[in-house]
Amino acid sequence: MSNPNALGDLLSTLLDRHPFQKNNGKGGSVNELCMQLLAEKSEASGQHLATSILNRLRDQSQENRAEFFAFLNTQLDIDAALVAKLARQYEKFPTLENFSALSRASEPQRQELFRRLNQAPGATAELVQLRSTLLSEIKEEPDLGRTDHDLVHLLRSWFNRGFLVLRQITWDTPASILERIIAYEAVHEITNWEDLRRRLHPPDRRCYAFFHPSMPDDPLIFVEVALTKGIPNSIQGVLSENRAGIDAGAANTAVFYSISNCQSGLAGISFGNSLIKQVVRDLSRDMPNLKKFVTLSPIPGLTRWLESEGRTAILPEPQTLRQYAAHYLLDAKKPDGKPIDPVARFHLANGALIHQVHSLADLSEKGLLQSGGAMVNYLYDVSKLTSNVEAFDQKNEVAAAAAVKTLARYASKSSLA
Amino acid sequence: MSNPNALGDLLSTLLDRHPFQKNNGKGGSVNELCMQLLAEKSEASGQHLATSILNRLRDQSQENRAEFFAFLNTQLDIDAALVAKLARQYEKFPTLENFSALSRASEPQRQELFRRLNQAPGATAELVQLRSTLLSEIKEEPDLGRTDHDLVHLLRSWFNRGFLVLRQITWDTPASILERIIAYEAVHEITNWEDLRRRLHPPDRRCYAFFHPSMPDDPLIFVEVALTKGIPNSIQGVLSENRAGIDAGAANTAVFYSISNCQSGLAGISFGNSLIKQVVRDLSRDMPNLKKFVTLSPIPGLTRWLESEGRTAILPEPQTLRQYAAHYLLDAKKPDGKPIDPVARFHLANGALIHQVHSLADLSEKGLLQSGGAMVNYLYDVSKLTSNVEAFDQKNEVAAAAAVKTLARYASKSSLA
Amino acid sequence: MSNPNALGDLLSTLLDRHPFQKNNGKGGSVNELCMQLLAEKSEASGQHLATSILNRLRDQSQENRAEFFAFLNTQLDIDAALVAKLARQYEKFPTLENFSALSRASEPQRQELFRRLNQAPGATAELVQLRSTLLSEIKEEPDLGRTDHDLVHLLRSWFNRGFLVLRQITWDTPASILERIIAYEAVHEITNWEDLRRRLHPPDRRCYAFFHPSMPDDPLIFVEVALTKGIPNSIQGVLSENRAGIDAGAANTAVFYSISNCQSGLAGISFGNSLIKQVVRDLSRDMPNLKKFVTLSPIPGLTRWLESEGRTAILPEPQTLRQYAAHYLLDAKKPDGKPIDPVARFHLANGALIHQVHSLADLSEKGLLQSGGAMVNYLYDVSKLTSNVEAFDQKNEVAAAAAVKTLARYASKSSLA
Amino acid sequence: MSNPNALGDLLSTLLDRHPFQKNNGKGGSVNELCMQLLAEKSEASGQHLATSILNRLRDQSQENRAEFFAFLNTQLDIDAALVAKLARQYEKFPTLENFSALSRASEPQRQELFRRLNQAPGATAELVQLRSTLLSEIKEEPDLGRTDHDLVHLLRSWFNRGFLVLRQITWDTPASILERIIAYEAVHEITNWEDLRRRLHPPDRRCYAFFHPSMPDDPLIFVEVALTKGIPNSIQGVLSENRAGIDAGAANTAVFYSISNCQSGLAGISFGNSLIKQVVRDLSRDMPNLKKFVTLSPIPGLTRWLESEGRTAILPEPQTLRQYAAHYLLDAKKPDGKPIDPVARFHLANGALIHQVHSLADLSEKGLLQSGGAMVNYLYDVSKLTSNVEAFDQKNEVAAAAAVKTLARYASKSSLA
Repeated sequence: MSNPNALGDLLSTLLDRHPFQKNNGKGGSVNELCMQLLAEKSEASGQHLATSILNRLRDQSQENRAEFFAFLNTQLDIDAALVAKLARQYEKFPTLENFSALSRASEPQRQELFRRLNQAPGATAELVQLRSTLLSEIKEEPDLGRTDHDLVHLLRSWFNRGFLVLRQITWDTPASILERIIAYEAVHEITNWEDLRRRLHPPDRRCYAFFHPSMPDDPLIFVEVALTKGIPNSIQGVLSENRAGIDAGAANTAVFYSISNCQSGLAGISFGNSLIKQVVRDLSRDMPNLKKFVTLSPIPGLTRWLESEGRTAILPEPQTLRQYAAHYLLDAKKPDGKPIDPVARFHLANGALIHQVHSLADLSEKGLLQSGGAMVNYLYDVSKLTSNVEAFDQKNEVAAAAAVKTLARYASKSSLA
Repeated sequence: MSNPNALGDLLSTLLDRHPFQKNNGKGGSVNELCMQLLAEKSEASGQHLATSILNRLRDQSQENRAEFFAFLNTQLDIDAALVAKLARQYEKFPTLENFSALSRASEPQRQELFRRLNQAPGATAELVQLRSTLLSEIKEEPDLGRTDHDLVHLLRSWFNRGFLVLRQITWDTPASILERIIAYEAVHEITNWEDLRRRLHPPDRRCYAFFHPSMPDDPLIFVEVALTKGIPNSIQGVLSENRAGIDAGAANTAVFYSISNCQSGLAGISFGNSLIKQVVRDLSRDMPNLKKFVTLSPIPGLTRWLESEGRTAILPEPQTLRQYAAHYLLDAKKPDGKPIDPVARFHLANGALIHQVHSLADLSEKGLLQSGGAMVNYLYDVSKLTSNVEAFDQKNEVAAAAAVKTLARYASKSSLA
Repeated sequence: MSNPNALGDLLSTLLDRHPFQKNNGKGGSVNELCMQLLAEKSEASGQHLATSILNRLRDQSQENRAEFFAFLNTQLDIDAALVAKLARQYEKFPTLENFSALSRASEPQRQELFRRLNQAPGATAELVQLRSTLLSEIKEEPDLGRTDHDLVHLLRSWFNRGFLVLRQITWDTPASILERIIAYEAVHEITNWEDLRRRLHPPDRRCYAFFHPSMPDDPLIFVEVALTKGIPNSIQGVLSENRAGIDAGAANTAVFYSISNCQSGLAGISFGNSLIKQVVRDLSRDMPNLKKFVTLSPIPGLTRWLESEGRTAILPEPQTLRQYAAHYLLDAKKPDGKPIDPVARFHLANGALIHQVHSLADLSEKGLLQSGGAMVNYLYDVSKLTSNVEAFDQKNEVAAAAAVKTLARYASKSSLA
Repeated sequence: MSNPNALGDLLSTLLDRHPFQKNNGKGGSVNELCMQLLAEKSEASGQHLATSILNRLRDQSQENRAEFFAFLNTQLDIDAALVAKLARQYEKFPTLENFSALSRASEPQRQELFRRLNQAPGATAELVQLRSTLLSEIKEEPDLGRTDHDLVHLLRSWFNRGFLVLRQITWDTPASILERIIAYEAVHEITNWEDLRRRLHPPDRRCYAFFHPSMPDDPLIFVEVALTKGIPNSIQGVLSENRAGIDAGAANTAVFYSISNCQSGLAGISFGNSLIKQVVRDLSRDMPNLKKFVTLSPIPGLTRWLESEGRTAILPEPQTLRQYAAHYLLDAKKPDGKPIDPVARFHLANGALIHQVHSLADLSEKGLLQSGGAMVNYLYDVSKLTSNVEAFDQKNEVAAAAAVKTLARYASKSSLA
């Protein structure tokens, strides 16, 4: 062969050509390709077929996508009659063969399809994206919940805590990751690279993220931390351009002031609890000067709840707002007895306690709208996490500092009665 | 606190203490801990509990281990009657709720247990080890096949091709990994570090391995490659201490002369086909001078088969041995029509063809015992892989060079008739 | 010792304390510390002393700095009479002892001082900074050129090509390095991070920099490259926000459109020639589709020269401007016979040839001011580099394409005659 | 061009061809090439020429090498008469021009040659090797000391402490580096990879090395450390295959039991003091449990000295040997007043003190031969390093524990009187 690259070219042509692909151009629909992938014996060929399918899915029209999800949901569903029959058989004769047959029948084929799609390079991120799309479709077509049930089952297994990697995000992190941090920040917007620099570079700032090995450039969740003397009472103070920084060694408190989930396709798979605990563990190991671990958290449901209680528009006095906030966090409950406020539910379920509430603490438009500017510190006191979790889980008890309880009592007695 | 490390100490004490652990010392059996882990709501606590269980499992007595496997196999099995009932219900009313209920019921709880155990640091390797142990137990207690069915199902999902990482093994690889390569080599023993160096360091040698991100120091499978001019006809020539090496750029052939699976706990999960194809792809991209990709493979079942055919002990003439070997590879079949020889089955199922057979090719004790010293080259001709796979899969056709077929005909006509 | 960190604290206190440091607070001047460093026998102590001196130098007042440079220039100069005497002695008796004595005497002590200062961590960057300061002082005090002579002598030795490392700058490079790229760009300003992203991230863009191992976060010089089809005739086209990118494999030309030196303290130590040649070498090895390597360069002295020739303000016709530019590049010479234009001198001395001149090529304010918007492509034709270098070096011959020579002839004949 | 690699091939051909190389085959001698390199204006061409010269030097015959060194020593020496003249001129008129002229004249051209040779990739290691060869030649031809003076001057500048990198050597270090550690160990031979593993892998063992960025695979010096409870009294105990290891956290002492210089070409450039101090600093920062830093050192000159004192062959009683050893270390002096023993000189000059002496401490053949099996601990007490250095440097005072002094007195009073 005169051209030295010819064999390489031939090779990739051939490895890329698949028996079923001849008619890919027009004939073979995505659904047919999926059936072929499920039938494929060779992993190497399967890998190629998976790539083709994912490429197609990426560029699909809205209509074709709906068709594809319908296909997953119905054609790749279980055969319930067969499952029932095999279950009865295994009940009578609990042999390995009967068990295997039942196992196979009771797992929808779409699960195997997802696993096989995942053989392609970069597929895991595509499947996370696919679920993100699926979640939008479900709003129109709730029946697709079955397919989501299977996909989330797999993703939960793949994004198991044991596979996650904690990495510190610093000003030395690749820009390609940092631009995602900017995009994903969901609590206190990062307005530009200078703003990001102020959150990463000073010696009293930290940021940590979980990554999955198959998506090494794309964080799953991250938390921003300020190292402070004492507990800060406003986000303005934390994020101010002109604040005076301190040496990390002079801090006694670590403040978790922002936690953002990054992947809408992983909704319902929780990483936050593990992330906070891991960061508390690492920081206290490396910096014995840190004595307290608190959050500076929004109270997203306060305004709405106040309005529902007949307390509208007019901004209360700062001290009154603190009472309202304490009352809301301690006493406003869902039918199941857990707090209405989702952020409160998250931290209390992790074992934290309500430590302080602050007014004039978030003067951004969003902050004023959602909570009249109030914020709250949840305290992660490692000696009480376990008992708090149990009391909250089993008895709906909300752990709180005495001062917060007092504030709440004032509010419930007076103004909101 | 006067001692600056005190908070850190306290922290790890507390995070390490778990409500259920008080009685770990004597009371709580591993089985009870497993039930607690399945009931655990907090992932962070679950992670700790998982660590405790894995620690215990590691040091378990033979007797306790049997008990533990029995627990997994029976107590954490499915409730078949319930599955049958829920399946009938879903058949009638295919709602999301009924689907979820059936899904939950039809997956044995041990699968969820394995997933939760995997939250602990280093757990994946431990679960691979657990399966290795389980496989030994199964020989005594075949019924444990059900538990194995579930464990291998999970491991197959976790060790999905999409999660594997190909790395070249060189003389610059950490010694901690290289000592495992020495230990895992299963085809042609690596006798010492000098021998290893001869297989990695010269410019005409390569070694590649698949790794899983959760076991970054421990290869899953590796292949050793010699870059040669022409196809070698003996393993002695390839491994000789005194062989004259060549420049990589002067080679026209890549010879896969040893492929070793490393993890007995991953038996039945095949990586070899993907590994070979990936290495072929990478090598031909980087080295356009390579025109042929062949193996130099053992024929492990030849002697046994010859004996079973009434041809024993006395070593045949070289040329006769080549005829026997060709005949064996082409014509000795299992009841299902596939070749008896397991190495042949592997490469033929990958799409390779039988290219040449050699006598006097492996003069080691093992080589002489298993095949009278005969070896075989399987050729990976990328333009024929797909059609070979189909023909082998569907029609049991064995692809072979004309010369090999001729050899086989001589043997079948004459001596072995 | 009750406090487990006490030994560590004691240790760093002690290692940090130096016999001569007792009076650092007020007494010991920087000059005295330098004399002590020159007398120091222990490298470990010297390292500490060096750190102290560098710390002091960093925060020095303008006045003290002048004093320090004067100290270097006079007190640490050679003893010329002694050198003369030892030289005569060595002339008569060329023994090793006489040679050593002469060597020692003829190297100013400040060189040894610089070497000893460089023992401190991070000292190399500090010394580069020191030279930058020295270069400003020299304008006032030309006599300091002696100290500069010695410092640049050392820096040239330390920043020897053999120690430099070429690294590609990409969108995956740490932000801490990227912000320096933004700051150092000296040819076509990078206005913000988006602009930077457009120069690094698209598949048809490249950026390479030289680094020194002692300053791993701080580039010495970098070049920005566009991969194009054909030779671009304007910088606007190259930098446009809305340009249509191409696949790297579809390019046939690599355009070096910006080269920036980063360290004013390394002025006079040239890295540009080596950088371009190395990038040409690497790109043509990795991308055989690239057939031409050209620059798209400014003509910084054109306007000034036109004015000096009595051709002022009014912008000529595009075609006329091209003639002027060609004429200027080919014919405007310094007294030594080399071109007036510094960019032309640089590329011609490297062996490049003047390939094309363009009008309307740089419509930025700077571009219009310095050259009426004209730019030039210098071609790096690897088959002619050596002969071009020789002809330029020895005979002041300027290599240029025929068309450029024709353009120049028109200009010289007519308007500028 | 039909062949896509053709440009690349052409390029490397051309970049590799140099005008002066045409006659390299037979004509141009190494000396001529060196003169050309000194005349070369382009760094890129110089880099290539440097490579050619180094290639030639590597394969040179003994005879040619002698000729090359003679050339360096005489033809590239200074012109002493010119230096004398320029020095007188600078004395009279201390202008920058006169200074520069003198500077240039007083540095032998071979220094510039060495710097230019160093432009080639990998040249630094070659120049270190060149000096190693030079040092052997000097034994025959002491006059070459002049060339060595210049080469070591440059190497000392390039291997400045500020450029060195400390790296821990572990069992995860690349095998290519580990095999060098095995080869370079000069104190207590590493017999094979298992022996090496025992020195690196256990939790109570450490090894650290200095590297230079231009020789990243080749250590300059390394030290082996044992973490122990109490101070060990024999090397057998430290290196025993069957010793019981301890947790690193349980150790209170770090024992430096072997320090090896790796590069004979860097003889006379001392790294040991810096290495020990840096390791002491790092270990005490990371492990506050370590209270003592001692060596376990050989006494290489003891036997020879005893013999010179009329005490030969017959092995003394252990306790007597300890007295002799203490006496030798404290009292056996060179004419300049410093100890005869080179290891003692090294540690005492670093500020260590003689802490304990042991008999039966090194029962290897080498140990018995050189010191009758005696060894010594030098203690690095950070609170006394500075004062010890001064006392040793200025007053030849040898710091030693009281018990060691007592031992020495017994010896000097009695047996050796």
